Amino acid sequence: MTTMVLPIGLADVERAAARLRGVANRTPVVTSRSVDRRVGVGTRVFFKCENLQRGGAFKFRGAYNRLAALTPDERARGVVAFSSGNHAQGVALAARELGVPATIVMPTDAPASKVAATRAYGAEIVTYDRLTEDREAIARAVATERGLVLVPPYDHPLIMAGQGTAALELLEEVGPLDLLLAPLGGGGLLSGCATAARGLAPDIRLIGVETELSNDWEQSLRVGERVRISPPPTIADGMRTQQPGELTFPVVQALVEAVLTVSEDEVKEAVRWLLLRMKLLVEPTGAVPVALLLSGRLGDLTDRRVGVILSGGNVDPDVLCEILA
Amino acid sequence: MTTMVLPIGLADVERAAARLRGVANRTPVVTSRSVDRRVGVGTRVFFKCENLQRGGAFKFRGAYNRLAALTPDERARGVVAFSSGNHAQGVALAARELGVPATIVMPTDAPASKVAATRAYGAEIVTYDRLTEDREAIARAVATERGLVLVPPYDHPLIMAGQGTAALELLEEVGPLDLLLAPLGGGGLLSGCATAARGLAPDIRLIGVETELSNDWEQSLRVGERVRISPPPTIADGMRTQQPGELTFPVVQALVEAVLTVSEDEVKEAVRWLLLRMKLLVEPTGAVPVALLLSGRLGDLTDRRVGVILSGGNVDPDVLCEILA
Repeated sequence: MTTMVLPIGLADVERAAARLRGVANRTPVVTSRSVDRRVGVGTRVFFKCENLQRGGAFKFRGAYNRLAALTPDERARGVVAFSSGNHAQGVALAARELGVPATIVMPTDAPASKVAATRAYGAEIVTYDRLTEDREAIARAVATERGLVLVPPYDHPLIMAGQGTAALELLEEVGPLDLLLAPLGGGGLLSGCATAARGLAPDIRLIGVETELSNDWEQSLRVGERVRISPPPTIADGMRTQQPGELTFPVVQALVEAVLTVSEDEVKEAVRWLLLRMKLLVEPTGAVPVALLLSGRLGDLTDRRVGVILSGGNVDPDVLCEILA
Repeated sequence: MTTMVLPIGLADVERAAARLRGVANRTPVVTSRSVDRRVGVGTRVFFKCENLQRGGAFKFRGAYNRLAALTPDERARGVVAFSSGNHAQGVALAARELGVPATIVMPTDAPASKVAATRAYGAEIVTYDRLTEDREAIARAVATERGLVLVPPYDHPLIMAGQGTAALELLEEVGPLDLLLAPLGGGGLLSGCATAARGLAPDIRLIGVETELSNDWEQSLRVGERVRISPPPTIADGMRTQQPGELTFPVVQALVEAVLTVSEDEVKEAVRWLLLRMKLLVEPTGAVPVALLLSGRLGDLTDRRVGVILSGGNVDPDVLCEILA
């Protein structure tokens, strides 16, 4: 029998929570009787609203936790990250908060609103051509050239531990849960949340959710190693990663019961439903676990207490109106 | 010197709160550092999210408070209300909760989604032609014919007291406020909230907000009596009432510092901003006080603590996408 040492434990998440106190939003937990009724008899669903987190997504948690651990020298030189989405805003915001210069590598065709938001947080933007250039290589080149610390989107113990504080807060606030659902892109959120939840509640069921088109996790867990897929054309843009993370994979493998999938139409229906019924703007990636919950494929949830991480709310108005049409 | 006896006092709101405990949602209070920064130096803004109330608006509070006071006979016979909007859903939901039959008089051209939602709560729908028939007369006829109690949308002490529980909860949760903003249609919400807030905090500034097109309150307060305007073509459909209420008017007159107005464009911008920046779906009527807050016309809010009632979140997807376009 071998014992695997996982890259993070509950204590890491607790340390992250202490760092984030008063800095990250302690996001509200929302419940709805009509959701509960729709999902099962006596079921209670608790939505952790990371769409109401600073920067509009959970990403600020991990970014701040990483940046807070920089040495004074590293802080003075600054950080670099590559992302066209929530990670960019999370890093830019955390950097501003800590007085650290931030450079974000974004594709030339990134939505103007995301570029503007990232710049508004004070970050310098370096653009690249998505079709001909490799963003990771560019970010590494910028890092080496300028002596910057590269902040990866998920594959770092401090990032993972930071994201786990979302589950820590949820469990602190609502008490024991039977089941926790979270979306999966690179796996930072789920690995952190699974670590926190399992640490606090050894019997909790943990389920990750991705789209059918972006099922790199499902495939990887099936064969027991990280499978690489072609760029998935899913509406859930936080799930367009092509492969599970190196550090996040073993954590999910060890702690999570299953990774399940939903269709693109189910995701859109969940976004609509969250917006029009629950009055919450949740981006497609964040709506993925809700899509599974509403599908009925989780089986009998009678009298179960279910937690769901709504991971973010950054969605362009034109994408939103396409979904609503 | 004459002393005016107002139709409700703080004790009425407190009694309503006791009735609503465990029945109405204790809606979350949301804050945002970027809002605070935009509004003033050291300003703190507290949004009371009645868009997350049952039925999607504050209306459930007043309706339930009224229906809970019915005699056993009245409960058995049932209630009738006229509304094409949030009051319909509030009454239907409160009636279902209390096992009271409900009839709702709605125009033939009411949005299908609102008719469906009201019917889904178990209410019987009676339709009328908005252009040729008088809904109030029809509701009164139905009431007399069937022996039903008519539940008015705002002009009733129990309705007003019920709506006031929103401000009561807000002040209980966040502590003292310097200023409270609420939207004004018939005045049920503002009169109740003003009563609660003034009762708890004698020095709080209370400001009502309506649109320039639906400025019956502004006009009425100026001349000191209820002015009737033509049907106002405002996007804020909760403000399409033509005249202040008979009971709500003296309360607002006595307790509220001013009723201020915003333009249609300012309302749309506030809806967009609440949705895209705060991730909250708030209907145009609910966004009206936020439009004023963002306009800068409230003057210097340095170090002030400001409460805002986000009254509801029921908006049709096509209206929403028009606003977002």
